[in-house]
Amino acid sequence: MQEKIKLASLKNKPIGIFDSGFGGLTVMSAISKALPAENLIYFGDTAHVPYGSKSRDAVIKFSKDIAAFLLKNDIKLLVIACNTASAFALTALKKSLPVAVIGVIEPGAKAAVKNTKNRKIGIIGTEGTVSSASYLKAVKKISKARVFQQACPLFVPLVEEGWNKGEITQAVVKTYLTPLLKKNIDSLVLGCTHYPLLKDLLAKTAGKNVSLIDSATATANEVKEALLKKDLLSNAKKAALKFYVSDNPEKFKKIGSKFFCKKINKVKKICLEKM
Amino acid sequence: MQEKIKLASLKNKPIGIFDSGFGGLTVMSAISKALPAENLIYFGDTAHVPYGSKSRDAVIKFSKDIAAFLLKNDIKLLVIACNTASAFALTALKKSLPVAVIGVIEPGAKAAVKNTKNRKIGIIGTEGTVSSASYLKAVKKISKARVFQQACPLFVPLVEEGWNKGEITQAVVKTYLTPLLKKNIDSLVLGCTHYPLLKDLLAKTAGKNVSLIDSATATANEVKEALLKKDLLSNAKKAALKFYVSDNPEKFKKIGSKFFCKKINKVKKICLEKM
Repeated sequence: MQEKIKLASLKNKPIGIFDSGFGGLTVMSAISKALPAENLIYFGDTAHVPYGSKSRDAVIKFSKDIAAFLLKNDIKLLVIACNTASAFALTALKKSLPVAVIGVIEPGAKAAVKNTKNRKIGIIGTEGTVSSASYLKAVKKISKARVFQQACPLFVPLVEEGWNKGEITQAVVKTYLTPLLKKNIDSLVLGCTHYPLLKDLLAKTAGKNVSLIDSATATANEVKEALLKKDLLSNAKKAALKFYVSDNPEKFKKIGSKFFCKKINKVKKICLEKM
Repeated sequence: MQEKIKLASLKNKPIGIFDSGFGGLTVMSAISKALPAENLIYFGDTAHVPYGSKSRDAVIKFSKDIAAFLLKNDIKLLVIACNTASAFALTALKKSLPVAVIGVIEPGAKAAVKNTKNRKIGIIGTEGTVSSASYLKAVKKISKARVFQQACPLFVPLVEEGWNKGEITQAVVKTYLTPLLKKNIDSLVLGCTHYPLLKDLLAKTAGKNVSLIDSATATANEVKEALLKKDLLSNAKKAALKFYVSDNPEKFKKIGSKFFCKKINKVKKICLEKM
């Protein structure tokens, strides 16, 4: 009986999710849709955003600080909803944390391998994600598919400027995708949580022979499977969604709502250095 | 006699210069050209770059931490070689530091007022600089000229991607400048230290009736005047140039050299949070 009560309270603990800024909200949104009963806590490291151009050591340090904060909030599972942090910090966090940790890279790579027919997969991401070659390694672990990578450092600022369509963004998309399309890829992994907002332009440029693989959806499925396996799916009637940032809560409310596809009403600023 | 020795050693103390990343190197380069005998110490806060999208409070905190580090290095003068930090932190640093502090905004505003004939000045900068309205206030303090502002958040990532020319950047430049050109400005202040690298495209789009005002050169002149006035110009035969960053020293060497227009050989990483 006591065991049952313990499990019930475990089940209703929140899932922790973090990213360098707003981008991870696309992952949180996918998790919230797949698992509407889950309590979710999001941390956006807006004092250090973007991670894509930062060093491995710096990203590991930031990630550890955030994970410590989320653990204090009694999470049952941690999702690294940021490609650069998944690339650099997943192994370190898996080793050091007492809860399961899921990044966005392995789920994205698995989905691409499942989808590809001609075994030619394209990966687009930030400078950090691409130079870490994490998607490439994740694909190679489970398949013999060929992988072609392209860093797209202008996509994040274009999305944050709100230029999700128009001629300029179309031209930037074309510049970055052309080398990959020449390789005849049939699957393209959106290896950055900002990129789902460019889906229309990416699909148009890639053409109907290329499927877009969104890591956010793949990661949400992975989270569901992990919780099912451990019998930790929430049975709460109403889920609580909490949002924390390291800088600029007002801006996060405004821009974050676009990424989350829902209005964000309350955001709290936390100074991790003081903790 | 002792007084003279004291002044001589004061003269050869370094000038401290800081920015959120590489951009301030255009200011350091201008200072080094105007004052080749000065010892210079540069700090690039590459763990937090860019400042343009961060909050006022965060930028003031970062700036204070950096100023404390530079003071430990016994500087005689501090230059805030970053428009966002000048906009947000100049007053706070002037109040709290024992050395003179010079930002890039007042020199740029003065140079624009001196140059304009039709009293219509355009300002381009980051989101932070523009929303602080610091150039506008600095111009209004000394003149009745009209000021028109435009935030250009894509310029920094374009420069950092190395896309200083080409059709895409040309189109972005045109999009941002058109509203200012419609106002019939005759002077355009490059209110971000990255923008001198876009000078050719900016000049071409603005046309020959608009003068570009580069804050870097204006700031170097202000530094020279301040040191002359206090009789603190260096008489060193060979100047030492030192570079510090909070992240990614290797990347700083590589990209920084473009901004500094000279090879940067040695860069040291400093963790300010541990100091």
